[in-house]
Amino acid sequence: MAVGRRQLRIDAAELETHIQTLGAVGALPEGGLYRPVYSQPWVDAMALLERWFAQAGLEVRHDAVGSLFGRATGRDTEDGVVLTGSHVDTVLRGGRYDGALGIHASLAALRSLLDAFGRPRRSIEVVALCEEEGSRFHCTFWGTRAMLGLIAPDEPDVLRDADGITIGAAMAQVGFDPAAIPSARRSDLAAFLELHIEQGPVLASAGLDLGIPHTITGQRQLAVTIHGRQDHAGTTPMDMRLDPLVAAARMIERITLAADSMGRPAVATVGRIEARPGAVNVVADSVRFTIDTRHSDALQRLALIQQIEAAIGEVAAAAGVKVSIERLIELEPVPLDGEIRSLLTSAARDEGLRYLEMPSGAGHDSQMMAQHLPTGMIFVPSREGRSHSPEEFTPIDQVVPGVRVLARALYELAYR
Amino acid sequence: MAVGRRQLRIDAAELETHIQTLGAVGALPEGGLYRPVYSQPWVDAMALLERWFAQAGLEVRHDAVGSLFGRATGRDTEDGVVLTGSHVDTVLRGGRYDGALGIHASLAALRSLLDAFGRPRRSIEVVALCEEEGSRFHCTFWGTRAMLGLIAPDEPDVLRDADGITIGAAMAQVGFDPAAIPSARRSDLAAFLELHIEQGPVLASAGLDLGIPHTITGQRQLAVTIHGRQDHAGTTPMDMRLDPLVAAARMIERITLAADSMGRPAVATVGRIEARPGAVNVVADSVRFTIDTRHSDALQRLALIQQIEAAIGEVAAAAGVKVSIERLIELEPVPLDGEIRSLLTSAARDEGLRYLEMPSGAGHDSQMMAQHLPTGMIFVPSREGRSHSPEEFTPIDQVVPGVRVLARALYELAYR
Repeated sequence: MAVGRRQLRIDAAELETHIQTLGAVGALPEGGLYRPVYSQPWVDAMALLERWFAQAGLEVRHDAVGSLFGRATGRDTEDGVVLTGSHVDTVLRGGRYDGALGIHASLAALRSLLDAFGRPRRSIEVVALCEEEGSRFHCTFWGTRAMLGLIAPDEPDVLRDADGITIGAAMAQVGFDPAAIPSARRSDLAAFLELHIEQGPVLASAGLDLGIPHTITGQRQLAVTIHGRQDHAGTTPMDMRLDPLVAAARMIERITLAADSMGRPAVATVGRIEARPGAVNVVADSVRFTIDTRHSDALQRLALIQQIEAAIGEVAAAAGVKVSIERLIELEPVPLDGEIRSLLTSAARDEGLRYLEMPSGAGHDSQMMAQHLPTGMIFVPSREGRSHSPEEFTPIDQVVPGVRVLARALYELAYR
Repeated sequence: MAVGRRQLRIDAAELETHIQTLGAVGALPEGGLYRPVYSQPWVDAMALLERWFAQAGLEVRHDAVGSLFGRATGRDTEDGVVLTGSHVDTVLRGGRYDGALGIHASLAALRSLLDAFGRPRRSIEVVALCEEEGSRFHCTFWGTRAMLGLIAPDEPDVLRDADGITIGAAMAQVGFDPAAIPSARRSDLAAFLELHIEQGPVLASAGLDLGIPHTITGQRQLAVTIHGRQDHAGTTPMDMRLDPLVAAARMIERITLAADSMGRPAVATVGRIEARPGAVNVVADSVRFTIDTRHSDALQRLALIQQIEAAIGEVAAAAGVKVSIERLIELEPVPLDGEIRSLLTSAARDEGLRYLEMPSGAGHDSQMMAQHLPTGMIFVPSREGRSHSPEEFTPIDQVVPGVRVLARALYELAYR
């Protein structure tokens, strides 16, 4: 039998206080936050969370890379740990919700369960993962990778920030020993649940309460270079040019059309473009632009990429320019666990919520976790789809339903 | 009666020697030339030309800004001076023909006339103009503007090169007094003739011998800024975006189409583009690109600009993005003198040449001169249309016909 509605009490006021209090740590004078891993704001944020975890009666510890755990040990310690949380670090000029909200929600959900039902059968741990964004070092999913044993031995000495400091040295500066990284590996995890803001406009614009992601979308990033012929902009008739920027413009139109016509959740984005030499009065010699294309379905993702690459080839051939395509990033879609999704959708229905099963267009710690243990995600709406921005906002009455669904799923996983 | 064909003897071997010898002055290790005004290569080039002018029996002098004149004084000094020549400075990594060829051609033409017909009625001066390109200082047409009294009093102290040196200080370093600039003004000029490489592919690709420009094309340069909305490239569905780069791509296509469909000599070029923030995985917030558009006909030029601006507005409205257009440069077309054009076309016919009356898509000293005195130009072909490049090349047998036409026109202007 599922949890009754009135049994779970989420302390919305405390949740909002936590959001705002942690949201002030790392605040920048120009607006927004910056809490890169192993910085002073990161240390301050972890200290604050440690205090809140302890106040909730949880057993608190850090692992070797600094991820913070608050544990409610279960009666049956042989049946693995149900882990829930998200990351504490932010992008530069980020907001108060990306990552942090998943920690706050996990703590609030666990407190409501402890209050209502006491000690769980399986142990539950709330986690503040030390690093996800890769903002300071190119070390994305650092905390999750440590837990999964996926940090390469040379990374502490190889990864450097913009000041040339290695991540190993940065760890040591705040009291963590890079030699101990292998000790962070966990073999006792039974499941991972992560609540996160959607980071897109789908839920907010449709007036939905919740998203239940079924897949972390697959992605390919490409760099396209077009070689035309540099010419004088005044003396070269239009009909005698090999203008790579005109070809690039047609390609961008076709790339956009390919994703448009495939429909959601297909996306294709050209976010960066450069024409060389880049003079007002010179027909460019070459143009380079990037494409970021994503789809949650493995076959559809490949079909979209094929359409895009074919369109690029057709435009280049028609324009008489040479083109080369370089692959920057290739990520297969990562499906989330089917049983956990069922728990989450049941919980959403029990709460009377309007939810959408949807892919996650953005990357999350869950995409690493899901490749190694049963993993599920919950999205709450993002106002106007804003994220990685000081404008990130989700009203507390749109956060609480997600916390309730998270608590119900934790109940199913850890109390039954 | 026109000059007989056999009366004019152009010394092609000496002409080629002059092209190659001056073409070695300012040669860069990586290929190409650089002779910015008042640099050591510029001083060396002027010294070489001074020697050649003197060897030809001309009276040699510099004016206050350093332009070099070689004069054959006429019998009738009351009837003004016929001036012919071009500029000695080059762009960075320029070639041996742009500018320099007009000086060589003028000297060769004048020598052939002096040899055949002796002293002219009107004085003829060959000029090596000190500066046209604006490569070191933003001082385009410096030599010509000095002759026309168009240098503003503050320019010597205001114009600075990349090292912060003022053009006045640079003049003083090579022995010219900026205070004397007003003395360079000429009131005795009756006509100006300039031979130049076409700098475009029209003559070479059509197998024509000569171009007789009727107009220096009018130009407008614009900067277009499009404001869309920055969004996450993974989480924002295609149908919910305000992507300024997609709008820019459509605008570039329409801009190109506008010039294409108007036909020669309409041109429109987007040579520079930037998307901000310019990240692979972020839908851009804004895009800025430039347009350089030219036409030799004043009304057609305005019609082309109107079409382009209308297309930009239509695309922006359809895409829901905001757009602003800033004017960078506005130049009306400058017609060249009709009587001198008649002299030049008659001369080309007398030489049995296939010539094209055409606009000049590039700017030249002649566009300044033509606004103050009767001015004409002669274009010789540029191999593959190359210019402002080490690849600039015109075979000597395609130079000589232009020199012969120049000589015939000088005869009509100065010997009759």
